[in-house]
Amino acid sequence: MHTAMRLNEVITKKSKEAKLVLLNMPGPPKNRTNKTNPMDNAVYKDYPFFTDIQVMIFIGFGSLLAFFRLYGFGGMVFNFLTATFAIQWAILVQGYFQFSHDGKIHLGVINLINAEFACAVVLISFGAVLGKTSPLQLLVMALLEVPVFAVTEWVVLKYLKINDAGGSILIHLFACYFGLGVTFVLYRPCLNEGHAKENTSYQSDILALMGTLFLWVFWPSFNSALTLKGDDQHRAILHTFIGLSASTLTAFALSAMLNKNGKLSMADIQNVTLAGGVTVGASVDMMITPAAAYALGMMGCTACMLGYKYLSPFLARRLRIQDQCGIHNLHGLTGLISCAAGICAILIASEEVYGPSFYEIFAHRAPVEGDPKLQELQMLIPGLQPGLGRTAQEQALFQVAAVVSTIGVSAFGGLLTGCVLKMPCLSPPSDDLCFDDELFFEVPPDYDSPLRLKNIVTMNDSTD
Amino acid sequence: MHTAMRLNEVITKKSKEAKLVLLNMPGPPKNRTNKTNPMDNAVYKDYPFFTDIQVMIFIGFGSLLAFFRLYGFGGMVFNFLTATFAIQWAILVQGYFQFSHDGKIHLGVINLINAEFACAVVLISFGAVLGKTSPLQLLVMALLEVPVFAVTEWVVLKYLKINDAGGSILIHLFACYFGLGVTFVLYRPCLNEGHAKENTSYQSDILALMGTLFLWVFWPSFNSALTLKGDDQHRAILHTFIGLSASTLTAFALSAMLNKNGKLSMADIQNVTLAGGVTVGASVDMMITPAAAYALGMMGCTACMLGYKYLSPFLARRLRIQDQCGIHNLHGLTGLISCAAGICAILIASEEVYGPSFYEIFAHRAPVEGDPKLQELQMLIPGLQPGLGRTAQEQALFQVAAVVSTIGVSAFGGLLTGCVLKMPCLSPPSDDLCFDDELFFEVPPDYDSPLRLKNIVTMNDSTD
Amino acid sequence: MHTAMRLNEVITKKSKEAKLVLLNMPGPPKNRTNKTNPMDNAVYKDYPFFTDIQVMIFIGFGSLLAFFRLYGFGGMVFNFLTATFAIQWAILVQGYFQFSHDGKIHLGVINLINAEFACAVVLISFGAVLGKTSPLQLLVMALLEVPVFAVTEWVVLKYLKINDAGGSILIHLFACYFGLGVTFVLYRPCLNEGHAKENTSYQSDILALMGTLFLWVFWPSFNSALTLKGDDQHRAILHTFIGLSASTLTAFALSAMLNKNGKLSMADIQNVTLAGGVTVGASVDMMITPAAAYALGMMGCTACMLGYKYLSPFLARRLRIQDQCGIHNLHGLTGLISCAAGICAILIASEEVYGPSFYEIFAHRAPVEGDPKLQELQMLIPGLQPGLGRTAQEQALFQVAAVVSTIGVSAFGGLLTGCVLKMPCLSPPSDDLCFDDELFFEVPPDYDSPLRLKNIVTMNDSTD
Repeated sequence: MHTAMRLNEVITKKSKEAKLVLLNMPGPPKNRTNKTNPMDNAVYKDYPFFTDIQVMIFIGFGSLLAFFRLYGFGGMVFNFLTATFAIQWAILVQGYFQFSHDGKIHLGVINLINAEFACAVVLISFGAVLGKTSPLQLLVMALLEVPVFAVTEWVVLKYLKINDAGGSILIHLFACYFGLGVTFVLYRPCLNEGHAKENTSYQSDILALMGTLFLWVFWPSFNSALTLKGDDQHRAILHTFIGLSASTLTAFALSAMLNKNGKLSMADIQNVTLAGGVTVGASVDMMITPAAAYALGMMGCTACMLGYKYLSPFLARRLRIQDQCGIHNLHGLTGLISCAAGICAILIASEEVYGPSFYEIFAHRAPVEGDPKLQELQMLIPGLQPGLGRTAQEQALFQVAAVVSTIGVSAFGGLLTGCVLKMPCLSPPSDDLCFDDELFFEVPPDYDSPLRLKNIVTMNDSTD
Repeated sequence: MHTAMRLNEVITKKSKEAKLVLLNMPGPPKNRTNKTNPMDNAVYKDYPFFTDIQVMIFIGFGSLLAFFRLYGFGGMVFNFLTATFAIQWAILVQGYFQFSHDGKIHLGVINLINAEFACAVVLISFGAVLGKTSPLQLLVMALLEVPVFAVTEWVVLKYLKINDAGGSILIHLFACYFGLGVTFVLYRPCLNEGHAKENTSYQSDILALMGTLFLWVFWPSFNSALTLKGDDQHRAILHTFIGLSASTLTAFALSAMLNKNGKLSMADIQNVTLAGGVTVGASVDMMITPAAAYALGMMGCTACMLGYKYLSPFLARRLRIQDQCGIHNLHGLTGLISCAAGICAILIASEEVYGPSFYEIFAHRAPVEGDPKLQELQMLIPGLQPGLGRTAQEQALFQVAAVVSTIGVSAFGGLLTGCVLKMPCLSPPSDDLCFDDELFFEVPPDYDSPLRLKNIVTMNDSTD
Repeated sequence: MHTAMRLNEVITKKSKEAKLVLLNMPGPPKNRTNKTNPMDNAVYKDYPFFTDIQVMIFIGFGSLLAFFRLYGFGGMVFNFLTATFAIQWAILVQGYFQFSHDGKIHLGVINLINAEFACAVVLISFGAVLGKTSPLQLLVMALLEVPVFAVTEWVVLKYLKINDAGGSILIHLFACYFGLGVTFVLYRPCLNEGHAKENTSYQSDILALMGTLFLWVFWPSFNSALTLKGDDQHRAILHTFIGLSASTLTAFALSAMLNKNGKLSMADIQNVTLAGGVTVGASVDMMITPAAAYALGMMGCTACMLGYKYLSPFLARRLRIQDQCGIHNLHGLTGLISCAAGICAILIASEEVYGPSFYEIFAHRAPVEGDPKLQELQMLIPGLQPGLGRTAQEQALFQVAAVVSTIGVSAFGGLLTGCVLKMPCLSPPSDDLCFDDELFFEVPPDYDSPLRLKNIVTMNDSTD
């Protein structure tokens, strides 16, 4: 309810210029004549990517998080609730920091895309605590995570000025370490012993796989939504597709190799196949060659798979980090690889390879205002904007700084948030009601019948 | 079969000009030179919206209507059948009334979108009688509803000339009161006592939720598909998103508040979360401010929720109106709020706020041909079309007239259609075979096993 | 793994010109100035169609192939694996034959679309052997089928130069007869007796129907993705929609007529409703009139339905062709009808009806270079390219040649591939483990409980 009031307070519109408040138009309305082609409105560039990301957030994530046998409602519904709240909250917070002029927040589809990215951050973190948090806890987590993320994003983009088209640093690393911070505080020792309800059913596995497929199919839109239009966006789409393809094949091969009897595990296919999408993120719009994108997909996938196999159990038992969906494997390890790859791509990038688009992709490497080199370049590339005159090494260091500070801020924010979530008034579920829809939902009569039936089957089988 | 023949009769193409029959091209082919950019074809403006609406109609509606435990086939399949038939029939009927020139129906993707809107009307009405009608009855209902709708639409658009971008009046109110009329005639007293098969299962609830999510995700496309291109469409997308977000959060809050033990009900989440999309409909392209869109979403959601809780049982018991999916809550009450909001938005709209686009959105308020004020305005806004010179109050009255006449015509049409559907030759299912796939489908061996198993489980449980 | 290396070898990028390797740009980069509108990049024309086709391949096909009760994982997961592999492999093979210049394969979203078409070929063939092949066999099948297809495609497009916008000849006929060839060699006599696991469950039927709906909804994008932009693409979309609508209604009518008690069969609705999309394929971009598209949809649907009813059992029993999903009905018979219709459309096409676009759609009928008629035409139609001067009859003969050679090559290729797949090292499943996820997957505890429970239910019922 208070969100509506905030919206009301923040977004007011009184005068003719205020039209901008609700619309991201190319120019001010007074310059607009009837000759302006309505199809030039920014909505037509952004909306197709927006709907793709909507499907990923609400249907892809929702189905993937519904993989527990008795927590299908919880996975899909809490994803729906958390996502809706996080997007609204992010519109306000990001708007306040990044998209306000004259005290007004400007709103267009592009801002919805930005808000959905903030929402993706919250949903990834949600993955670490899936099944052991109440909806109230999730809302509080979103309430706290979105501002921490928005401030980090704003600082990194405004002061560190990094290259991170696919959001490997800002989205995936942030979300991962924030989520790990939260789950560290919410540690439940008894879950390490295994939980009777912490498993899948045939239908829930299929549903989660469908979620994976929706994420897989639209991931290129996610990674390319905020790149420069034209060649850069084209490249981002292709690299993401290549990275995903590589990680999918690798995931199948590794799953068959690492599981006993060479059988495939649905958990691997649901999660590890997506690793490539994260791994290409930081360099997705650069000219890294298809081969590099492919190699990145394979590396990310291998790291992710080994993480699920060896690192996650270790973290849970030794470091008290119970990472329910393994976000550290799918977003943390792969994010780190992606950042490293991004830095390499920056170090080897040269004007010769990129041509005039060099100073568009690496805008901060253009010479500063007043530099005679800038004028020279502007003769060749009309419209070139002055930059910061950074060298490749400097840019690389800023990337490193962004990684380190993002991880630091997010882990610290996650720990604090975890402490807030421990408040009993947020009614966390008791240990034996984790992964259980019955606590929060009116369930239909056939709820949990499969398992109880299974017991009877076993009984009947044994009496036969 | 006869549809094909009608298509054949109506849509004939003999000469060079006839190319227009199948294509909605910007100009006649003779003016077309090779310099025409093929990307200017209207298909590129409309097709993305068309595919989004297709997903809503066939997958969104289909899954949402499959929420009954034993009527999953019926929900999805009859939705598929009815939708396909209604679209084809609407192409012909709407074509005859609105899109024919020189005795030929012109066909383009834009006409398919219009036909899908007519189809949505039929599917909403279907919601009122879900589970208690045979496919033959549904086809007859579509056969009768589409022409009544098309004529109403044509009269309202041609003579009353109203603002209703999201179709709150023409689509939602019409569909609702038509459906209520039909279900009133098809009243089955014994259903008021509760029906053994009128409930959900764990999987059917998840499937229906997925349908909801598809509708939620693409609703902005639905509400904006027929607005003016450019800013107006951008605004319609944003307002719909805001309205849906508001109603989703409100629905969660109210569901927890109104159900016992604070548990969430899946039926609420599947239906009430969508109320905001309807409520913003009539004013979706106007400059109503995000705050107003948010407030509309909350109001619509509250009305819808209370309707499910208190009004639907009352209607069923006292007024003999058995509204199976509660369309009166989701489309009727919200539609009325939307119309009221649209009228308010019209009354307070001023040239100062809207700028030159005022006479585009409110085309009927532009001065009439010959009025000296028109010439003045045309100096400022080149290309301005003459209108009807309506004042805000006049336009508001026309809106009211449209609402009243739409409700009257649709309810009357629904009652008559209901009488036709009562004919025994349409083989309506008997009372105890309602909500039952076995009547119309060859069902697989595990059909209905959950419930029968449940009984055994209970037996076993009690003997333990 | 080797694919990555091949990619690396084949796609190398060293110099400024090499930017083309990864991007399908309108002109070479040196001609590119900052005045180029980035929105002119080909990606914006192709990407919406690409995502639609992605949904069809991964979610539509995947869900549709998951219709077996105990082979849901197998259907969706092996579809995922095979599709990913086939696309990558097709990028390389098609790239080598069609899209390489100066020894480099050029890659853009348009090439991904082409590769997804090759992938669709493999997935259709997969339908013939669903449930009785190991993932290794499927990969080998893709490994062999893609090059045979790519060479056939290249020869047909380069030398025979046919009209086949929707791929009825190249995609559907090729895929069908290749698949039949494979399944002929992999004949398993005992499957003709019926297999205990070769049936559906309530949930698997709903899942498969959802796959059908995704295919249905996006089929217009599939059929129009590679047509000429503008009117042609618009027409292809409309014709596909009309064809699908016709076949859907026909399928419902025939299913009720041909099944006992007038009940609908889910298998019919899942498959036969799609027949119209294939049938309009070969003439989808021509001016065949909506009535002809409608008639084609009905004819294709009828052939397909009768095929399922009478031809498939005959093929299995007499010709040793066990066609698991009935691809011969959905892609073979309909493909043949489509080719015939395409030839008719070519024979009756005239300059008068098509206007200047005649020589765009039928590019090979334009006069040859140097022909004085060409100059005359170029006065009327600036920019007209010289063609081959074919008459309608000649073009029709080339179409026939393409059909015959495609069927011949694909059937032969399928037979050879089948022989390779018989190698024991590819670990085909034993007869009683066909249609069984347990062989290749770690299955959850409730796997197959429905059937075993059913037995208990029956037992309990009979003891009651």
